[in-house]
Amino acid sequence: MGDATNDPIAELIKNYNELNSSHITELDEEPSALEFMRFVARNTPFVVRGAAANWKATQTWSARFLEDHLADETVNVAVTPIGKADSPTLHDDGSLIFAKPWEEDQPFPTFLNYVIQQEKTQSSSLPSEVRYAQTQNDNLRHEYSSLFSHVQHDIPFARIALQHPSPDAINLWIGNSRSTTTLHKDNYENLYVQILGRKHFVLLPPHCQPCVNEKPLKPAQYHRAADGSGLELRLDEQGEDVPFATWDPDRPGEETTGYSGLAEPMRVTLEPGDMLYLPAMWYHKVSQSCSDEGICVAVNYWYDMDFSGPLYPLSTFVRSVNNSRNHR
Amino acid sequence: MGDATNDPIAELIKNYNELNSSHITELDEEPSALEFMRFVARNTPFVVRGAAANWKATQTWSARFLEDHLADETVNVAVTPIGKADSPTLHDDGSLIFAKPWEEDQPFPTFLNYVIQQEKTQSSSLPSEVRYAQTQNDNLRHEYSSLFSHVQHDIPFARIALQHPSPDAINLWIGNSRSTTTLHKDNYENLYVQILGRKHFVLLPPHCQPCVNEKPLKPAQYHRAADGSGLELRLDEQGEDVPFATWDPDRPGEETTGYSGLAEPMRVTLEPGDMLYLPAMWYHKVSQSCSDEGICVAVNYWYDMDFSGPLYPLSTFVRSVNNSRNHR
Ligand SMILES: O=C(O)CCC(=O)C(=O)O
Ligand SMILES: O=C(O)CCC(=O)C(=O)O
Repeated sequence: MGDATNDPIAELIKNYNELNSSHITELDEEPSALEFMRFVARNTPFVVRGAAANWKATQTWSARFLEDHLADETVNVAVTPIGKADSPTLHDDGSLIFAKPWEEDQPFPTFLNYVIQQEKTQSSSLPSEVRYAQTQNDNLRHEYSSLFSHVQHDIPFARIALQHPSPDAINLWIGNSRSTTTLHKDNYENLYVQILGRKHFVLLPPHCQPCVNEKPLKPAQYHRAADGSGLELRLDEQGEDVPFATWDPDRPGEETTGYSGLAEPMRVTLEPGDMLYLPAMWYHKVSQSCSDEGICVAVNYWYDMDFSGPLYPLSTFVRSVNNSRNHR
Repeated sequence: MGDATNDPIAELIKNYNELNSSHITELDEEPSALEFMRFVARNTPFVVRGAAANWKATQTWSARFLEDHLADETVNVAVTPIGKADSPTLHDDGSLIFAKPWEEDQPFPTFLNYVIQQEKTQSSSLPSEVRYAQTQNDNLRHEYSSLFSHVQHDIPFARIALQHPSPDAINLWIGNSRSTTTLHKDNYENLYVQILGRKHFVLLPPHCQPCVNEKPLKPAQYHRAADGSGLELRLDEQGEDVPFATWDPDRPGEETTGYSGLAEPMRVTLEPGDMLYLPAMWYHKVSQSCSDEGICVAVNYWYDMDFSGPLYPLSTFVRSVNNSRNHR
């Protein structure tokens, strides 16, 4: 380990793999603030099985309950043809572009029943589109605030350890198995709690940037055709390129870089009541399975990450070194 | 910040400097284990003023006390011509080599009185050599074990946070202002406690490796000439090159690299009773001032660092990138 090679990036990924397991640590109760801080210090994920088993949300939410509770609400829905919002997508002209979802307001019961019907009927009697309530704008304290008292207002061990009186955002996610969240990363410490159905995470540490084949992609957005018939993808000609991962750890032979083969993705499935610590800047791809009722519901807490210390500038460094190698 | 440049190393150092202060955090009481863990997570030093003010060592040690207490002991002493043990040194042939001290056993009172006399008499009536008790082999639990009960057996906040029942080493340092410890780094979390006199630390974070002009140096050692007249430096022809920092932040214009000018060294002086947290892998240069009695005495606690997580492989990466640039 640590031998000088001609390829510092390969050496970095191998050194890390030798010193760190790609199997996630499983806890059976919430860590103390100190225990949590040790994971933050190592920038290493863990899952707490059953951490939220007794939350009111976990105990009482069901499709029926949500429909009743939000009967008169209108919610923002992300609409895409095949369930990939914010994702590299092949354009008509053969180029890869960054496709953002069409967003529209729908009465909650209309949205929910669509999601359930689609999950339950494998047939294509429904229009070919996938709907996902996935606004990441603190929606549980805004759009869905009537549900907020059913979940914890924060994650105490994280509040104490990270010294943020309140999370930066608390988000509710409602969808079905057609939606997948493409591999990406966020500058947040993330505590992710499963309520109904299951979520399947594939995780990569920040220094795996050279594995994910980040490309600058032209931004685009789906729009509902004027006649209501379907979704069309429109390039945002003014928009700046979005640097985005194009490698998918579930299709490891496509869109590879010379380093993709070195990545050792960490995989974890969350069952209802499970809580995942997804450390700041980790790449994550998320897919979902539905409850018997045909929905998948989760809540997550974003805490601001600490930009001081070595992790943030060193992660930027890995990216810069990789870019300068590619441009040599 | 974070703009792509053609020089990822310069960008790294600048990004870090923008996000981190080069002034050390001063605490007026010991941190809790959780507070400490936040500093470990950020790999960031702090000093606790007066943390050891009430230790028996701080309260009772003096030159006289030590001489009495260790009257019959023989101790290992590092002997060098000008007070630089383990330091890049100009060889007769003009090359830079890595000079290790001559080590010999001396009766403790002989050693101590030499150190004091040298400090007190500015004249050169003494032979031209500098003596420093600086064995880093857990000497306070071995050579000096009769003094061990005068200091804490560990640092509780570090033991709890780092989960090591006992430090890996506890070392006593006794010398005068002629000795300087050259800039270097250790793979330990270090809690450093001043007892008598003062120590002056100059600190640089691990990613400043490209600033310190690390060179592979041929190892050498001082030997006392057979006639007892003086010290001569002998190359260790069999020994492997020692990669070692050659830049001295106190002579910033000499032995520079293209990055030395970007370094923003953190400086702190420890007074008796002060405790420094020196995070794993930080470069440190240490010089000393004596108490009125003409000695400088300190104790430090080394805890094994955590090689898992991103810091260790990323620090190795910085070094590899820097080396591969130098060899391009
Ligand atoms: O649940 C999902 O679909 C994605 C979650 C996610 O990306 C996040 O919590 O940051
Ligand atoms: O006190 C000194 O001279 C050097 C201390 C040092 O290098 C250490 O504690 O690692």
